[in-house]
Amino acid sequence: MKWKPYAQSHLTIHEQIVDWIKSRIEQGHWAVGSKLPTQRQLAAQFNVNRSTVQLALDDLKADGLIEARMGSGVYVANNSWNMLLNRTRPNWQRHIESSIHKPNLDTIQIINEYEQMEDIIRLGTGELSPDLLPTKQLEQSLQEISLESKAIGYSAPQGSFKLRQLLSEYLKKRGIQTAPENIMIVSGALQALHLIALGLLERESFVFQEQPSYLNSVLPFQSAGMRMVSVTRDAKLLTTLKTLKRKRQSIFYCVPSLNNPTGQSWSVKEMQDIYHACKELQIPIIEDDVYHELRFQDSSPAMKSFDTFGQVLYIGSVSKTLSPGLRIGWVVAPSPVIERLADIKMQTDYGSSAFSQEIVTHWLASGLYEKHLIDLRDQLKRRASLVEELLEKHFSRIATWKKSEGGFYIWLRFNEPIVNKELFLALLNRKVLINPGYIYDASDLHHVRLSYCYASVDEIQVGLQNVLDTIRHQE
Amino acid sequence: MKWKPYAQSHLTIHEQIVDWIKSRIEQGHWAVGSKLPTQRQLAAQFNVNRSTVQLALDDLKADGLIEARMGSGVYVANNSWNMLLNRTRPNWQRHIESSIHKPNLDTIQIINEYEQMEDIIRLGTGELSPDLLPTKQLEQSLQEISLESKAIGYSAPQGSFKLRQLLSEYLKKRGIQTAPENIMIVSGALQALHLIALGLLERESFVFQEQPSYLNSVLPFQSAGMRMVSVTRDAKLLTTLKTLKRKRQSIFYCVPSLNNPTGQSWSVKEMQDIYHACKELQIPIIEDDVYHELRFQDSSPAMKSFDTFGQVLYIGSVSKTLSPGLRIGWVVAPSPVIERLADIKMQTDYGSSAFSQEIVTHWLASGLYEKHLIDLRDQLKRRASLVEELLEKHFSRIATWKKSEGGFYIWLRFNEPIVNKELFLALLNRKVLINPGYIYDASDLHHVRLSYCYASVDEIQVGLQNVLDTIRHQE
Repeated sequence: MKWKPYAQSHLTIHEQIVDWIKSRIEQGHWAVGSKLPTQRQLAAQFNVNRSTVQLALDDLKADGLIEARMGSGVYVANNSWNMLLNRTRPNWQRHIESSIHKPNLDTIQIINEYEQMEDIIRLGTGELSPDLLPTKQLEQSLQEISLESKAIGYSAPQGSFKLRQLLSEYLKKRGIQTAPENIMIVSGALQALHLIALGLLERESFVFQEQPSYLNSVLPFQSAGMRMVSVTRDAKLLTTLKTLKRKRQSIFYCVPSLNNPTGQSWSVKEMQDIYHACKELQIPIIEDDVYHELRFQDSSPAMKSFDTFGQVLYIGSVSKTLSPGLRIGWVVAPSPVIERLADIKMQTDYGSSAFSQEIVTHWLASGLYEKHLIDLRDQLKRRASLVEELLEKHFSRIATWKKSEGGFYIWLRFNEPIVNKELFLALLNRKVLINPGYIYDASDLHHVRLSYCYASVDEIQVGLQNVLDTIRHQE
Repeated sequence: MKWKPYAQSHLTIHEQIVDWIKSRIEQGHWAVGSKLPTQRQLAAQFNVNRSTVQLALDDLKADGLIEARMGSGVYVANNSWNMLLNRTRPNWQRHIESSIHKPNLDTIQIINEYEQMEDIIRLGTGELSPDLLPTKQLEQSLQEISLESKAIGYSAPQGSFKLRQLLSEYLKKRGIQTAPENIMIVSGALQALHLIALGLLERESFVFQEQPSYLNSVLPFQSAGMRMVSVTRDAKLLTTLKTLKRKRQSIFYCVPSLNNPTGQSWSVKEMQDIYHACKELQIPIIEDDVYHELRFQDSSPAMKSFDTFGQVLYIGSVSKTLSPGLRIGWVVAPSPVIERLADIKMQTDYGSSAFSQEIVTHWLASGLYEKHLIDLRDQLKRRASLVEELLEKHFSRIATWKKSEGGFYIWLRFNEPIVNKELFLALLNRKVLINPGYIYDASDLHHVRLSYCYASVDEIQVGLQNVLDTIRHQE
């Protein structure tokens, strides 16, 4: 993805690298005093031997442009270059460090980066593999879409009316009675959480969630200054909520159907208990329901389906089912909430892609979407079974798991607390990328979110073998 | 866009309205104690006479579901309904009022709402009219796009590499030397500002801007807790910047080419002065350059073109030129900035629509985009001339303006301070929507942002006649 030397250039590879690094420094992309990537990283980026990188760096050192610091790496040189430029640049690092939003966890940043690389086995990725995406059908559907000029201008604050109308019909099958006015289109479920954080909660609010939680891996509430509070579904829950609720504004976040990362679902009784507890205490609920269409068996109802009080903010999306690249999701909520979130969306990105909305409209209206879901569930189920066989064969003595009920994930629990950052990095060295449990619950060193939706079963087999080898090696 | 009674229903119009309002209350969309829209608003929404609405409301009052309060409107009744429900609902209003993000200005909310209606003359809209959008060509281009499965999964943090590569070529024509690594795709320029606010500035930072300013109408920095500081390009500017910069972290926002709302551009000398002043003081600059392709004459350079220090964060977009519905823009900036903004984008919406990115890629790669721009500039120029003729004829005694150099707007200055909210609302009553100067500068009661890009010249003529009539009427 990044710059590489060109084989066709009139310059040697090593000269091209020197020129490129110079231009990075010259144009201010690599600031004075900043650290260069390691030789290993540069060699990987350029797709060359380390010795070629070494050669280029030596040249640059001789020119006084960079300098090695004992045991700490190579830096853009301070003095010479500074003199040459006769200026200092904006101190971006200070800007970044003092700004509002939290950075992604280091492990997440690495995952985001390595997921873009070609030859990595992705054991934890929460996205459909290219061969599960209906790419050809999507391409075909592009030809069937007729655009209206009105539709490709700035969007109405809540998004396409046609799409919201179709969604209000579609949601009836999920037991949810709503109207287009109470639906808002968002750019995926994560944006819905971001808008809720900005538009409905004061700083320091409590966000209740079970552990492990998807929210710990994305920080939409944490970055907005909210406090995450872990709760468990037990006899003490009501008391806990009651005590804390008195102190601060609160909201309850949950994924009752096919939880991320555990893959587990609540029973109807459990849903009702939480719903009534929250209603009693006037704590709004966020029901994140992006996986339910991927249940292998009949779906349990949505919590929203027994909500006649406007207690539940319901979130859906096509990212897990049709294509994440569409960036289309929706929120169902009472009018004041929808109007508020729509108002903020108009201030942050002026609405979601009209083209993506047209595509989803077409897929819902034509029935293509539901037909695709049937096929997709079958394929995911097949993959889940095969991976479960692999686990049975190779992991039953060192780990436990529950049979998948649908969705993407198996929440693999190792008997020993071995899933730490060291293991994560060691596997990365073997080009195997895992989603360790600690990104969903910082104190968890037992779990891995194993995903059967992205890598092929063959790749998963190789990846799991690497996991076993690495664990043995570390013992 | 909202619910309306159906002519084909077996219920009378008035019964349908009663049922609909009941369901709003029952489902919690209209909370107990909340105020109903006015009769006028309801009649407009339902497209019926006020008397029909009155009839329906009388029925609901008789049922005890709503109650009139002296001189203040009609409310969802407290007691009877409350007893019936036996519960209170989440207090959304309290949630909204105590939350982080600022609401849009009231006038902006009204504009956003009325822009969705059919029979409104929009004199201020900053978007291409349906007949200036290349809708048919866009539809055609959908058929030429071949999708790759990889491209419709979750996006790389910075967006499509192919698109960034094309943009780095395209930007050369604007004098900007950059590389795909230093470009990030965003969902429009506004999102870029939102990400900069969250990712590069601490709360209470100073954001320098000239008055009037587009930023006052969208609040991306204000909502994140930054302080807006007005500056003027004069002899005292450097001192002002120097004094304030010492106190807090700062950034300078500007639209040097075809400013929004004034339509004016800076001279090269002015750009250089600001650039050097900011460089001297290490104040980063945001150059919002979304209009430059619409200059009727040769474009002046971008400030970014003489930035060899990574001082300028450059923002571009296709929203003003190709289609706002694509929601595609870009930021060019030093690596640490791009990486930071991309990281936050991954936390807020996981990237921009892959489909929109594919479309823009196709338009840039095929040359369609630049061909379209030539045609678009011609048409805008023709519209501008016609509107200037109208102004010459009818407004020269009460207002002044500068001849348009391109883009969308004429910044019309009335000799008297008459452009207040009263005028805005009076015109709305006549179904004419203006963008009053006070949304760009709260103290300005002289200006209107007159746009020749949306309404037809005939509509503009009618709209302007209404403006004249209303002003005369108010005198």
